[in-house]
Amino acid sequence: MRQLLALILLVGAACWGQPPGDCTPASTNIPGAQYPCVHPDNRVTFRLMAPEANKVQVQLGQRYDMTRAADGMWSVTLPPQVVGFHYYTLVVDGVQVADPASETFFGSSWQHSGIEVPERGVDYYEARDVPHGEVRSRWYFSKVTGAWRRCYVYTPPDYNTNVKARYPVLYLLHGGGEDQRGWVMQGRVDFILDNLIAAKNAKPMLIVMDSMSARKPGEPVPVRSGMPRGGIPQAGQPGRMPPATPAMLAGNRTFTEMMLQDLIPMIDSTYRTLPDREHRAMAGLSMGGMQTFATTLANLDKFAYIGGFSGSGGSGGTFDPKTSGNGAYADAAAFNKKVKLLWLGVGTEESPNTKLFHEALDKHGIKNVYFESPGTAHEWLTWRRCLNDFAPRLFR
Amino acid sequence: MRQLLALILLVGAACWGQPPGDCTPASTNIPGAQYPCVHPDNRVTFRLMAPEANKVQVQLGQRYDMTRAADGMWSVTLPPQVVGFHYYTLVVDGVQVADPASETFFGSSWQHSGIEVPERGVDYYEARDVPHGEVRSRWYFSKVTGAWRRCYVYTPPDYNTNVKARYPVLYLLHGGGEDQRGWVMQGRVDFILDNLIAAKNAKPMLIVMDSMSARKPGEPVPVRSGMPRGGIPQAGQPGRMPPATPAMLAGNRTFTEMMLQDLIPMIDSTYRTLPDREHRAMAGLSMGGMQTFATTLANLDKFAYIGGFSGSGGSGGTFDPKTSGNGAYADAAAFNKKVKLLWLGVGTEESPNTKLFHEALDKHGIKNVYFESPGTAHEWLTWRRCLNDFAPRLFR
Repeated sequence: MRQLLALILLVGAACWGQPPGDCTPASTNIPGAQYPCVHPDNRVTFRLMAPEANKVQVQLGQRYDMTRAADGMWSVTLPPQVVGFHYYTLVVDGVQVADPASETFFGSSWQHSGIEVPERGVDYYEARDVPHGEVRSRWYFSKVTGAWRRCYVYTPPDYNTNVKARYPVLYLLHGGGEDQRGWVMQGRVDFILDNLIAAKNAKPMLIVMDSMSARKPGEPVPVRSGMPRGGIPQAGQPGRMPPATPAMLAGNRTFTEMMLQDLIPMIDSTYRTLPDREHRAMAGLSMGGMQTFATTLANLDKFAYIGGFSGSGGSGGTFDPKTSGNGAYADAAAFNKKVKLLWLGVGTEESPNTKLFHEALDKHGIKNVYFESPGTAHEWLTWRRCLNDFAPRLFR
Repeated sequence: MRQLLALILLVGAACWGQPPGDCTPASTNIPGAQYPCVHPDNRVTFRLMAPEANKVQVQLGQRYDMTRAADGMWSVTLPPQVVGFHYYTLVVDGVQVADPASETFFGSSWQHSGIEVPERGVDYYEARDVPHGEVRSRWYFSKVTGAWRRCYVYTPPDYNTNVKARYPVLYLLHGGGEDQRGWVMQGRVDFILDNLIAAKNAKPMLIVMDSMSARKPGEPVPVRSGMPRGGIPQAGQPGRMPPATPAMLAGNRTFTEMMLQDLIPMIDSTYRTLPDREHRAMAGLSMGGMQTFATTLANLDKFAYIGGFSGSGGSGGTFDPKTSGNGAYADAAAFNKKVKLLWLGVGTEESPNTKLFHEALDKHGIKNVYFESPGTAHEWLTWRRCLNDFAPRLFR
């Protein structure tokens, strides 16, 4: 085995080159891949061997042309990138594809490449020498959709040993085009909670992550066949936030129904939960935030904690206390008494909608917490920071 | 949300077409992707929109040229494929990439596309209406490698409720170029065990899946930078079996050391196991089978059940009872008394090595079970069938 590894090392070094001395392979690369690599100033260098291609580009927020060397190796160094996780793709003669050197991450409804630009000195979403919880893959049958579903359940470090204890539950949603894997793969939910719990900054809790995709038999299924050329919506672009349509603001009603009738009862009967509203929270990012508000505001008898990360269904410009949230905000005093936490977070490079909504809620007397992630856009570092601020406030 | 889905449906149908009426989208596609699709006779049709590409191919065992339509849509229909899971890639102007329409599966050391060709009437690796276990993601620190590692642990359906019970453990390895995700994603380990346990055909057990990658600080790291053009080793090719080098036969010694010093103690202290050799099994596929034999034969005080799926480190042609397996087989009677199960399985379309090894063991008086998977090669359906035959024989 060692000889084999040494041989691969030798061949690799000879054929594919080493990255420049100051460039560190991204942690999101597949094992052994030297590119993409990140320079100390957060410039990022990409490479692809493609002697027969006419044009190769990197799509990371915008498109960058790569340059061909005589041997057919294409490369480009991007200007300094914002820290955190970014989706990216390669474009080979017009076809958007995942970079074979990257791990894949489900985003924009397909298996994207992703790159982690390290945030030096920050490790709340890294594995630390603390007790670790588990992320459990759980299959269950939904009567509402008539299909098997898989959710992930984070259990805190003491769940296996503290066998008499019961725990509060946070239901945590991904964004549009993502699925239940997002918070585990891109969000690092387990490390964030492990570290918060170890520091006694968050109460031990379960976190349930399911997919927002939920359709009854006969409800329309989105069809896609071949990827639209250049038409894939890109997350992670500075300043972007998906336009909220009335349908999106109303949420996916089938998801809400499935969650209330299938998911929550399954969780409460399978795990040692505290199955009342005072110990149940829901949050989500982007479209998942809109879904969260649609689900919880219509079911305040079941949820006491609500979080919207770069998405809430609320907008300062259109906020009307009587009608917004289907009237849930109308009686501010009653709302404040019932809802233990209304939490809003957003990146400073996103649209001002969330801030305006927060200000409108303040003006109307609705208690809320507003959080800004400095320097980040509609992207996962914003949401890791959101979770890191939101989770400590739960179940107090 | 529904309007949005309906819109996507409409646009999808208009722009990207529907598959032919008899062609069913593969279950391994990303949600909503209509291609690749599988015809009733197991022909498979692939499509890719690539108006600017000069040549597009599918690599599935061999390369197939796709044909360009006037609108830039490339397509090809492959001859009937063997049932089960196959890795495949697209080749766009010479660059091997994952199909954007497919889920990705870690194989050949990168995130491959995969296609499931359905085995009609067979559902032992599908979700049935039976109690389901969990697959738990577990992080732990290895002192041997000086690094954090992630393993997966399958826990049987009654593990959460039968809180006084202790369970036997199977350590189950992936193949070369794969990692700890292989048995979950490609192998369907959870469904296979759920179904066996529900039918009382297998004892409830834990299954621990870790990555064979294990290096001490300073040991060489394989380097790869850009993918070698056309040089990616392909699993799933009929009749192929990786040549076993002496180093591979000896196994990765650091992995064995890590397993004995870090992994097994962590599992036995974290989960309710039966921590003796009579309740500990190890098996693996291909290179993981070789690793299994290298690890277990040198540590028979720790393992009583041994399985090699398309790989064992043994060969009929070179078998020497005195020296093979470092002499572990020399005393057949002692070996038979000590080892509760020596199990060998292989696909009929693979090399005859495994069968010859089985015959040599028989001739030497070493008790062993030999299993053949009809019609399959060095691929995951062989190994699902292996597990389905192997697991029921454990811990009896």
